[in-house]
Amino acid sequence: MSGVPGKVYLVGAGPGAADLLTLRAARLLQDANVVFYDALVNPEVVALAARAQKIAVGKRCGAHSTAQRFINKRLVDAARTDGLVVRLKGGDPMLFGRAQEEIDALHAEGIEVEVVPGVTAALAASAALKVSLTRRGVSRNVAFVTPRVGESERASDWIASAASADTAVVYMGAREAAMLSRELVSRGLAPDTPVAVVEDASLASERSHTGTLAGLETLATRLGAGPAVVVIGQVLRELVAARRDAEPGALRKAS
Amino acid sequence: MSGVPGKVYLVGAGPGAADLLTLRAARLLQDANVVFYDALVNPEVVALAARAQKIAVGKRCGAHSTAQRFINKRLVDAARTDGLVVRLKGGDPMLFGRAQEEIDALHAEGIEVEVVPGVTAALAASAALKVSLTRRGVSRNVAFVTPRVGESERASDWIASAASADTAVVYMGAREAAMLSRELVSRGLAPDTPVAVVEDASLASERSHTGTLAGLETLATRLGAGPAVVVIGQVLRELVAARRDAEPGALRKAS
Repeated sequence: MSGVPGKVYLVGAGPGAADLLTLRAARLLQDANVVFYDALVNPEVVALAARAQKIAVGKRCGAHSTAQRFINKRLVDAARTDGLVVRLKGGDPMLFGRAQEEIDALHAEGIEVEVVPGVTAALAASAALKVSLTRRGVSRNVAFVTPRVGESERASDWIASAASADTAVVYMGAREAAMLSRELVSRGLAPDTPVAVVEDASLASERSHTGTLAGLETLATRLGAGPAVVVIGQVLRELVAARRDAEPGALRKAS
Repeated sequence: MSGVPGKVYLVGAGPGAADLLTLRAARLLQDANVVFYDALVNPEVVALAARAQKIAVGKRCGAHSTAQRFINKRLVDAARTDGLVVRLKGGDPMLFGRAQEEIDALHAEGIEVEVVPGVTAALAASAALKVSLTRRGVSRNVAFVTPRVGESERASDWIASAASADTAVVYMGAREAAMLSRELVSRGLAPDTPVAVVEDASLASERSHTGTLAGLETLATRLGAGPAVVVIGQVLRELVAARRDAEPGALRKAS
């Protein structure tokens, strides 16, 4: 590399399925010298980086600050010595990806950064359900929130944002289903507001369950260990009704 | 086709740049018999459908209901006679794309539908600005809203959603900049809340301007005729300050 500093591409790996990667991301992976990837990224996507050194970083539910500083340092070092560096993040880098900390650390060292957007999990979940997140007369706005707990920020912010949106998508929300349901009802959402949980959206292991906000905790217990989003809003009304009708015993119950 | 009904794929064309299409979308375009595409989709993306009949539908700012019914009918007819049909929409189909009307119309006729998610404009804008929409300690939620006017829905909903989110992205918001600024300030947002407008995100013609909510209307006058999103929130604070410092006369003003 003769002392020329490299460049770091923060690349969205998409929601899961390898072919939901963008053409640009695929090309960058093929050309990369080093790839740093999160634990949630599909191994098939990482494998596209045929000639790169591949380094797993990050935790499933967001790295701790110390770990994040360590990642930042490794990115800086790699950019200085290895030319084309790809930092691969699940979904889109700029949504719940802690991208800013990495961008700032690289800029502080004079290293060029480029961001390649990706398909985010909420949109893969919407595609899986075949339910549009916006809909004429029903929903004209969408909030993407996360209830990550144990941070110093006010917990009220994201609840207010989710409660005031026509459609809310909660990232990493399934494990907090009980709290989510309780808080949103306390903010005035009807207990029978339609909800869906979608696990492993776009993967072969994808599954979804639908019901109501009051029953969200029960729905969440039916999920496996994969990443899941919770979708909340009236856009789901027809789907929830249709699936309820299709359940075994639904006819008996109605008669 | 021997009477076998076809299948319609609702495909996200991504934000603009042809290589921000997904691998799946590119493959479907190559295999398609017919492609219906919106006016905002990059012609380079449409051209990937080498052997398909290509039909432009839709208006730049959302089709009227009559036009939408006509599109629905054409999709149904095409699925019955032409095998693999792609309905190509700018960005992601399930965000501000009127996808549900088309899905419902196709399902009502027994036609199979599959949705291929895409990169939405907000994420391309975030990548262009190199500013993450979420950020530890600053923003843990994002609202995507649109101020389309002249519909019967209450105008208050989207304003409340935008005002309560840590970061708001307003689709098709630049033409409503004056109203947007006025309404958000009336809901308690500080007039000096950082904002950015991004036009033609991801295209060669991409440009962005940054400033404050109070000055949004002036920023919007500097845009051309391309599609633009407005980003609002404290995640933009450092970028707005840095660009202000870099303006001609900034040093003079500070001294």
